[in-house]
Amino acid sequence: MTFSVDFLSKSWLCSTDDLDKSDMVLVGIPYDGTCSFKPGTRFGPEAARVASIGLESYSPYQDKDLEDSAFYDAGELDLPFGNRDKVLDIIYTCAKETLSMDKKFVGVGGEHLVTYPVLKAYLEKYPDIAVIHFDAHADLREDYLDESLSHATVMRRITDHIGADSFKQVGIRSGTKEEFAWIRKNNTLLTSLDEAKEVVQKFKNRPIFLSIDLDVLDPSIMSGTGTQEAGGLNFKEFIEWLKAFSSLNFVGADIVELSPAYDTSGVSTVTAAKVIREVLLMMS
Amino acid sequence: MTFSVDFLSKSWLCSTDDLDKSDMVLVGIPYDGTCSFKPGTRFGPEAARVASIGLESYSPYQDKDLEDSAFYDAGELDLPFGNRDKVLDIIYTCAKETLSMDKKFVGVGGEHLVTYPVLKAYLEKYPDIAVIHFDAHADLREDYLDESLSHATVMRRITDHIGADSFKQVGIRSGTKEEFAWIRKNNTLLTSLDEAKEVVQKFKNRPIFLSIDLDVLDPSIMSGTGTQEAGGLNFKEFIEWLKAFSSLNFVGADIVELSPAYDTSGVSTVTAAKVIREVLLMMS
Amino acid sequence: MTFSVDFLSKSWLCSTDDLDKSDMVLVGIPYDGTCSFKPGTRFGPEAARVASIGLESYSPYQDKDLEDSAFYDAGELDLPFGNRDKVLDIIYTCAKETLSMDKKFVGVGGEHLVTYPVLKAYLEKYPDIAVIHFDAHADLREDYLDESLSHATVMRRITDHIGADSFKQVGIRSGTKEEFAWIRKNNTLLTSLDEAKEVVQKFKNRPIFLSIDLDVLDPSIMSGTGTQEAGGLNFKEFIEWLKAFSSLNFVGADIVELSPAYDTSGVSTVTAAKVIREVLLMMS
Amino acid sequence: MTFSVDFLSKSWLCSTDDLDKSDMVLVGIPYDGTCSFKPGTRFGPEAARVASIGLESYSPYQDKDLEDSAFYDAGELDLPFGNRDKVLDIIYTCAKETLSMDKKFVGVGGEHLVTYPVLKAYLEKYPDIAVIHFDAHADLREDYLDESLSHATVMRRITDHIGADSFKQVGIRSGTKEEFAWIRKNNTLLTSLDEAKEVVQKFKNRPIFLSIDLDVLDPSIMSGTGTQEAGGLNFKEFIEWLKAFSSLNFVGADIVELSPAYDTSGVSTVTAAKVIREVLLMMS
Amino acid sequence: MTFSVDFLSKSWLCSTDDLDKSDMVLVGIPYDGTCSFKPGTRFGPEAARVASIGLESYSPYQDKDLEDSAFYDAGELDLPFGNRDKVLDIIYTCAKETLSMDKKFVGVGGEHLVTYPVLKAYLEKYPDIAVIHFDAHADLREDYLDESLSHATVMRRITDHIGADSFKQVGIRSGTKEEFAWIRKNNTLLTSLDEAKEVVQKFKNRPIFLSIDLDVLDPSIMSGTGTQEAGGLNFKEFIEWLKAFSSLNFVGADIVELSPAYDTSGVSTVTAAKVIREVLLMMS
Amino acid sequence: MTFSVDFLSKSWLCSTDDLDKSDMVLVGIPYDGTCSFKPGTRFGPEAARVASIGLESYSPYQDKDLEDSAFYDAGELDLPFGNRDKVLDIIYTCAKETLSMDKKFVGVGGEHLVTYPVLKAYLEKYPDIAVIHFDAHADLREDYLDESLSHATVMRRITDHIGADSFKQVGIRSGTKEEFAWIRKNNTLLTSLDEAKEVVQKFKNRPIFLSIDLDVLDPSIMSGTGTQEAGGLNFKEFIEWLKAFSSLNFVGADIVELSPAYDTSGVSTVTAAKVIREVLLMMS
Repeated sequence: MTFSVDFLSKSWLCSTDDLDKSDMVLVGIPYDGTCSFKPGTRFGPEAARVASIGLESYSPYQDKDLEDSAFYDAGELDLPFGNRDKVLDIIYTCAKETLSMDKKFVGVGGEHLVTYPVLKAYLEKYPDIAVIHFDAHADLREDYLDESLSHATVMRRITDHIGADSFKQVGIRSGTKEEFAWIRKNNTLLTSLDEAKEVVQKFKNRPIFLSIDLDVLDPSIMSGTGTQEAGGLNFKEFIEWLKAFSSLNFVGADIVELSPAYDTSGVSTVTAAKVIREVLLMMS
Repeated sequence: MTFSVDFLSKSWLCSTDDLDKSDMVLVGIPYDGTCSFKPGTRFGPEAARVASIGLESYSPYQDKDLEDSAFYDAGELDLPFGNRDKVLDIIYTCAKETLSMDKKFVGVGGEHLVTYPVLKAYLEKYPDIAVIHFDAHADLREDYLDESLSHATVMRRITDHIGADSFKQVGIRSGTKEEFAWIRKNNTLLTSLDEAKEVVQKFKNRPIFLSIDLDVLDPSIMSGTGTQEAGGLNFKEFIEWLKAFSSLNFVGADIVELSPAYDTSGVSTVTAAKVIREVLLMMS
Repeated sequence: MTFSVDFLSKSWLCSTDDLDKSDMVLVGIPYDGTCSFKPGTRFGPEAARVASIGLESYSPYQDKDLEDSAFYDAGELDLPFGNRDKVLDIIYTCAKETLSMDKKFVGVGGEHLVTYPVLKAYLEKYPDIAVIHFDAHADLREDYLDESLSHATVMRRITDHIGADSFKQVGIRSGTKEEFAWIRKNNTLLTSLDEAKEVVQKFKNRPIFLSIDLDVLDPSIMSGTGTQEAGGLNFKEFIEWLKAFSSLNFVGADIVELSPAYDTSGVSTVTAAKVIREVLLMMS
Repeated sequence: MTFSVDFLSKSWLCSTDDLDKSDMVLVGIPYDGTCSFKPGTRFGPEAARVASIGLESYSPYQDKDLEDSAFYDAGELDLPFGNRDKVLDIIYTCAKETLSMDKKFVGVGGEHLVTYPVLKAYLEKYPDIAVIHFDAHADLREDYLDESLSHATVMRRITDHIGADSFKQVGIRSGTKEEFAWIRKNNTLLTSLDEAKEVVQKFKNRPIFLSIDLDVLDPSIMSGTGTQEAGGLNFKEFIEWLKAFSSLNFVGADIVELSPAYDTSGVSTVTAAKVIREVLLMMS
Repeated sequence: MTFSVDFLSKSWLCSTDDLDKSDMVLVGIPYDGTCSFKPGTRFGPEAARVASIGLESYSPYQDKDLEDSAFYDAGELDLPFGNRDKVLDIIYTCAKETLSMDKKFVGVGGEHLVTYPVLKAYLEKYPDIAVIHFDAHADLREDYLDESLSHATVMRRITDHIGADSFKQVGIRSGTKEEFAWIRKNNTLLTSLDEAKEVVQKFKNRPIFLSIDLDVLDPSIMSGTGTQEAGGLNFKEFIEWLKAFSSLNFVGADIVELSPAYDTSGVSTVTAAKVIREVLLMMS
Repeated sequence: MTFSVDFLSKSWLCSTDDLDKSDMVLVGIPYDGTCSFKPGTRFGPEAARVASIGLESYSPYQDKDLEDSAFYDAGELDLPFGNRDKVLDIIYTCAKETLSMDKKFVGVGGEHLVTYPVLKAYLEKYPDIAVIHFDAHADLREDYLDESLSHATVMRRITDHIGADSFKQVGIRSGTKEEFAWIRKNNTLLTSLDEAKEVVQKFKNRPIFLSIDLDVLDPSIMSGTGTQEAGGLNFKEFIEWLKAFSSLNFVGADIVELSPAYDTSGVSTVTAAKVIREVLLMMS
């Protein structure tokens, strides 16, 4: 039995339902269990998918079309909220399996902690991976509320593995005195596009993971996130930064911290979907 | 290639993806092209589907569980907004094909005009069909803004086919002087559960179509609709009316006019999903 | 010069622009200067007028049509916010002039204090006037924040003039211990429709002023008001109360305290317009 | 040094800052760590406190005034979000210490799981305690998402200790087939005020704990909660239920699940504060 | 009969009600019938008029005062929603009549399709007219959803008449691959104020029509539009562009796509009114 | 009696409760009595205090930490809304007493008129004080709505005392023709950071009062204010201006016009708290 009329897709704009033929796998990771302020990012992946249908498939910024890419929308992971360790294990497994299929993993959060298990899987395949981190917050605490593993410590944990030398940040404007001391000591924060060029030069022969906390954008356009922090990038600046890195060899990425409950106007969700489109196009 | 981890469903709570084994087909009809006041019901079907995952599958009102029913979530029809006649034709075709598979069609609107092509298909299969109509508005105009076919005339057009005798209404509290004169003349408006019992007696051997405009509910709980009309049913009263009819032979139904943009608190969307659950359970 | 095409009215639904031929004058009174909690009712009259165009002109509750009434929409008074006494004087003058034209004054607030100067004008024409007061709050304080004349004292000031005997209340559910003691002592609060009938009997040969603070309605349907108070009338109950009084000789009325900024869903504003429609129809 | 001018209190309306002289201790418990759907109740206690200043201190429902009661506003517990067990331990300690001071504990949630450690402390002092539970959801699962201790299982865990015989529920309208089977078997759900009278008779010589999940109220007035469930009590019905139990010996209480992020109109927060006022007055 | 007290105007800030003495006619065009994504711009003209009263009449950007201009606020056209062709005809007639009175037409939308019939009228009077088009979207499709005439094709239809040479765009950042190819081929998109100067030079002796889709502004300040597109102009940039063109001979203009339902904070509506003020002042 | 568990502070982030040891006193001034457009700033101080707990105490902009400053959070003044003169007197007394304790007064409004009594107190201690004024609006009218003392005249009244020479403005973009003429004549408006340097040079040996109307920020990030005015500073620009003045001898400050009711996304309130943090740090 079948229908002769057409139905709209329930999946991401221009995604394929043929996993075998896809180069990238888009995975929703609806977890916000360690969020300490305003929770709600668990609804981010679904909201971004729904908003994607209102986007054009073509990007004038990159002169590329999503119709020419091949990515699979896996949907959202089914996660047991109350059990952080099990959640991290499921995410790890999903990333691991994606890599074993020789595909790129593109995660959509959820809180920033979800980057940790993904990078754990990447490190096993790419021991020399470097990370580019867009965020308003340093996420570099040694521990937070008595926990060594949370959204506020995730990038510190990751640099424990890859070294501060393989780690560059864009947009950081909030943190503790200690975090900013660490940033200055390790010179991880980029503040101009010229510095981005140097990074491209330095990282050009290495696999790169791109981790974008959407609150790197100014809350004027990204109110829909748990910790709104004034003074961020506007969208044009964000695109300039992204394009500055576009020649790098991105092997994976995630886009995290969309929290639809705080997006009263709908702008954040539409913009998050557009960011995901640009990341997908850059990685195609 | 496949994943070992689980993903959440992108479809309605407890729906099956096996069309052949389903008894009912849930079809989103995202059309609001003749809406004269506040448009936006085109986003209703998707919002209700997303909200369905927060529901329990069990209804204490009917002591039935959605897990025990077999319905297929077809998703939403792909409709050309600018062309009303083509839109109506696609809806008709979809309903016709559903009936030809010997399944029940359950539409989720969209504006109320979408009921018209569905009932056209039903009339061809069930010439003696009767209609039970929940609504705040009479929808009984002869014509509206120079059009004979719109959300404001839909039930008048339908009674042209089935006769006022086969047509009963619940909750009507807004209309023109002429519409209320017609209602009184034809005695179509039920105002007590006792009258519902008489209708059950009268209609018991006939196929029935149930058409629910969600604005029959009070705007205190259903602000998310285009034409909010104070003085509606609260949810308990609605359930009592629904249960009063539950022994009838419902062969099809639709639930229309959810407009998420006017649902600032999220209550309307959750409630619409709950109404759909109850209708699905009643028809199982 | 003129146009051949039609333009929408900028005035209230079905209002006439011929003051001479009208029986009632609808006057917006955008004042909230003594509001002690959440200000914003100054935007109420305009919001209600805009919302009126979405209403049907016919009321099934009273079987009357606004097209058969003759009322003039004067628009909103131009009031100097910082000067309470001058504001009250302007309102008084407007009411006085309306009465001198032998028309009924129907005010749309604005805060409840605006009732005071209107009733002052009425008392001069109708010394035996009685007042029916719908409200959540007693508004019966002797003084409030060191002021004897404010929204919280307005009804006490009025009873100073007309006597507690000529004053009946519906819906009061908030006040001080002293206000409720006064209510009990003077037996001003009606709690059943049967009591309403007695009032009709008692007041039947007298001129009546109807003052409706919209927060008499439950905040589930009337969130758009400065002091939301749970436990109010639903719309059907409100209509029953209104109809219970409909045989009285209403010579004036006001409908106050709509505050659109707190009406996130739009329901309050639409409902306020509907209340105004019903009052206009009852007085026609 | 000091000021001659007056400042507003930062604490609950009419609360005392003298712990020794107080009979009750109001404790904010900002925890929502096991919430499975829409988190955010951690902001409930603060929002209710802020809203309390807009309330009258007098209740016409009970003819009592908060100024005549003596309760201490302890503020909100400082809780480590990521560590459920430590959170529960802190709550337990706070309740235990309150009881050892011979005062009544009144908790303001946060999610419903916070009731568990409070009742653990109560059971040690009052082994024969009975519980009256207002809620939309049964909260009676054996386990939930692989956890035996969560907001969805909390009342089942409590009945493990006190027995189903010492447990009565009001307002339940959502749950699994199994939960409703348990309810019917143990006859825990009250559906009329007459049944409430029987309970009062049965429980009259025992210490009682009152646990109110605010979603027992209809979402038309309580949208600001994580799991909005149509068909709840309106405020008047809620007050009737509360008054039906008022002669019982309440030794403790909590009011949980206010989630301000979903309270777009502000009505839920004001109403929650009013519920807390009524509970404080009933226990005075 | 008349009143001695003053009433606020129901018309646009500083508008005259003397059509004969006005140089410009402000016409609301509340039509959104071909909108394919989020409808609602039909409420734009009214919202902008209401917001205008909160504006200063003086513009420090242009050092001009609206009190010194002479424009007539015609109100909003009465349009039959369901009949696109009739709608377009009414708009055409209104523009035609305005031009025959030797006045400038300033339209306030409504969706962008409303520009089409206006320009049709202008072409008959000014065959050599050129168009300057501010927008986020190219609006240059050959056809859209099987229609050759819609908001997405409007500028393509217009260039069919005037030629790509007489057409310049500002702010475009969304479109199909084909649209951007057309833009590059015809060199219609201006990206710097220097290019604006060249256009001024080129167009200086010709009549110019200015068409502003408000989504040319960044959604951080203009969320209230149907298709929010990140990366737009901020208000200062917009004013710089406008001033760059100010010496041109503007004979008509429109400002379209304000959709108040998506303007949760009110900023979009106030900003739209300010844009209209600046356009009126520039054309005075 | 006491508790062993910790409770969250009800006061501003990092404030001390030891008035004697503090250098600055933070005073909430919840007054909006002369507001002519959208009232509601009376809720600003409380909202900012609540939001402060979500901030980091460290500022990367100034490399300073609030933990190293000593300021007392006095809470909010208890003000009689209806009596403007008494309100101004209470504010004056509070500022006067703060200065007599040799502490700096930092006010949080409330409407801008509250600056007037504060500066009156400052003038008595610092006759040579200069004022730096951030605002969207000139606030320089001679009188407004027949009042010489209101939010729209406040800065004109202040320059009556200190002279236009001791008065500099940043961000003004709205006013009457007369106000802008005054600004040009007196050269009070700074438009570049270079001009700020000249001011620093000129004012370096004088006591300075800093008055920040938050609507100086663009409404994209500061919608939560009564009179939203497009074209303002973004947060980074604001910080640059603030840092340009940081070497001056600020003896007092206020931050006014936060109106939470118009801050639907929460961004304005968080940003206001961040502005207050930066001002406190700059004055430490």
